[in-house]
Amino acid sequence: MSGAATAGQQSPLAIICGGGSLPLAVAKFVSGRGRPVVLFPLRGAADPAMVVRYPHHWLRIGQLGGFARLAHAAGCRDVVFIGSLVRPTLWKLRPDLKALLLLPSIMAAYRGGDDHLLSGVSKIVEREGFHLLGAHEVAPEILVPEGTLGRVQASDRDRADIAFGLDYLRATGPFDVGQAVVVAGKHVLAVEAAEGTDQMLLRVAELRTGGRIGAPAGSGVLVKSPKPAQDRRFDLPSIGPLTVEGAARAGLAGIAVVAGSTIVAEPGQLVQAADRTNIFVIGTPAGPER
Amino acid sequence: MSGAATAGQQSPLAIICGGGSLPLAVAKFVSGRGRPVVLFPLRGAADPAMVVRYPHHWLRIGQLGGFARLAHAAGCRDVVFIGSLVRPTLWKLRPDLKALLLLPSIMAAYRGGDDHLLSGVSKIVEREGFHLLGAHEVAPEILVPEGTLGRVQASDRDRADIAFGLDYLRATGPFDVGQAVVVAGKHVLAVEAAEGTDQMLLRVAELRTGGRIGAPAGSGVLVKSPKPAQDRRFDLPSIGPLTVEGAARAGLAGIAVVAGSTIVAEPGQLVQAADRTNIFVIGTPAGPER
Repeated sequence: MSGAATAGQQSPLAIICGGGSLPLAVAKFVSGRGRPVVLFPLRGAADPAMVVRYPHHWLRIGQLGGFARLAHAAGCRDVVFIGSLVRPTLWKLRPDLKALLLLPSIMAAYRGGDDHLLSGVSKIVEREGFHLLGAHEVAPEILVPEGTLGRVQASDRDRADIAFGLDYLRATGPFDVGQAVVVAGKHVLAVEAAEGTDQMLLRVAELRTGGRIGAPAGSGVLVKSPKPAQDRRFDLPSIGPLTVEGAARAGLAGIAVVAGSTIVAEPGQLVQAADRTNIFVIGTPAGPER
Repeated sequence: MSGAATAGQQSPLAIICGGGSLPLAVAKFVSGRGRPVVLFPLRGAADPAMVVRYPHHWLRIGQLGGFARLAHAAGCRDVVFIGSLVRPTLWKLRPDLKALLLLPSIMAAYRGGDDHLLSGVSKIVEREGFHLLGAHEVAPEILVPEGTLGRVQASDRDRADIAFGLDYLRATGPFDVGQAVVVAGKHVLAVEAAEGTDQMLLRVAELRTGGRIGAPAGSGVLVKSPKPAQDRRFDLPSIGPLTVEGAARAGLAGIAVVAGSTIVAEPGQLVQAADRTNIFVIGTPAGPER
């Protein structure tokens, strides 16, 4: 299915938009290549100011019937999910009739991990006759390249922490848990699960303030990596300027992500934030034996 | 060294006491068997009311020279560390001359993970001519037995979560990270690292309140397990009534620990709390292929 990027190339691309700046970036890159886009911003998540430049239809989460009808009518065959989305409580979904008919599948998806949730949604969208593509397949510009972003470089000690963190994430990948860990001096300070990266960085900042962390300020690395079994079409790890601010507040030296498998939001502001806070941001090679 | 429990049986046992009720429990069990004890309560950690029943000498953390002199003078050969101890910041240690001479070793211990910290301290104590024993070696009554504590039983779904959590902790053991994880419906909700179990449970409670957790209230298990490479003499996982209260606030179904490798503080109050909050507490078999 991920090879379907070439199918229906000239049909308008349906972009289901969560929060943040990424949906607009993807819309820009795709329409810049001459492919029309139709945005489906999600109420409570997407920024209203962002969507006005493109044809768009507001959706509630759970309004699957509405989406399918509108997207089919617009001639869309390919669908992309992009943007942040806080996992909603079920009673907030207010499903329409079609979503209600699919509720057993959605419930089953909810009971699993995040991977199951997303691949469940993916199956549902595909059952409606669409191809689900990864945002990076239609807009590869949003991926972190290999090498350092900004001017701060990782030290040898930082590189040892990065290798340790990647090993850790590889060991826990099969358990469908978070994609991030904070390592300092080859000591795991925090592991991300349901709370997300920003909350984890906040915790490290608090532990540091409370004197619970032996490593000195200005040391330690946030390491993010896709899970091995992850469906990369719509669940790649991502970073942005707020991640850099969070790492700085946590007293870290920098951030390492896997090049070509990590989405970056607002790269210009991210580099500015990194240079200002003296945080390195590095895209490490994706090598098969990492 | 862990076979040294029989050596120097009649010499007074030196008990370095951190916070909580465990130091007194160990002192009771040991002296109940006719072996004299000398307590070394740590300032800022141990409860002053607790130590008055036994010969005791207050210590500051870092006051290693004082400890060695007093313990040798009391005829002690075996030493036990027991009780809670928040990892102090280095500047709070106020080391005495002997500890100052050993500062490079202590610093090196600090830079590693908790295991390295504790095995570093162990080496230092042994360099002073003492045997460091596990509290459970001199007072096996403090270990969680196999089976259910209290009247609430784990369901089959809970048992699947327990097996999943134990698998996860086995996979991460080599990384010297925390000893605990929260699992619901085979989904990892939280992983403990530097923050400790109580803080992790608080996080799960907050995630639940915020609607960030799909699993319904009353499901999910806190699973604790010793790290495979852990020095079991003085770093076994522990639970107590507060752990039960935390699990209840986090909306979990129960707590699973490894029988014979987990210390329980205040078992009577723990069982009361478990029955009152409808939380199961189970000691699972330690089997080699868990």
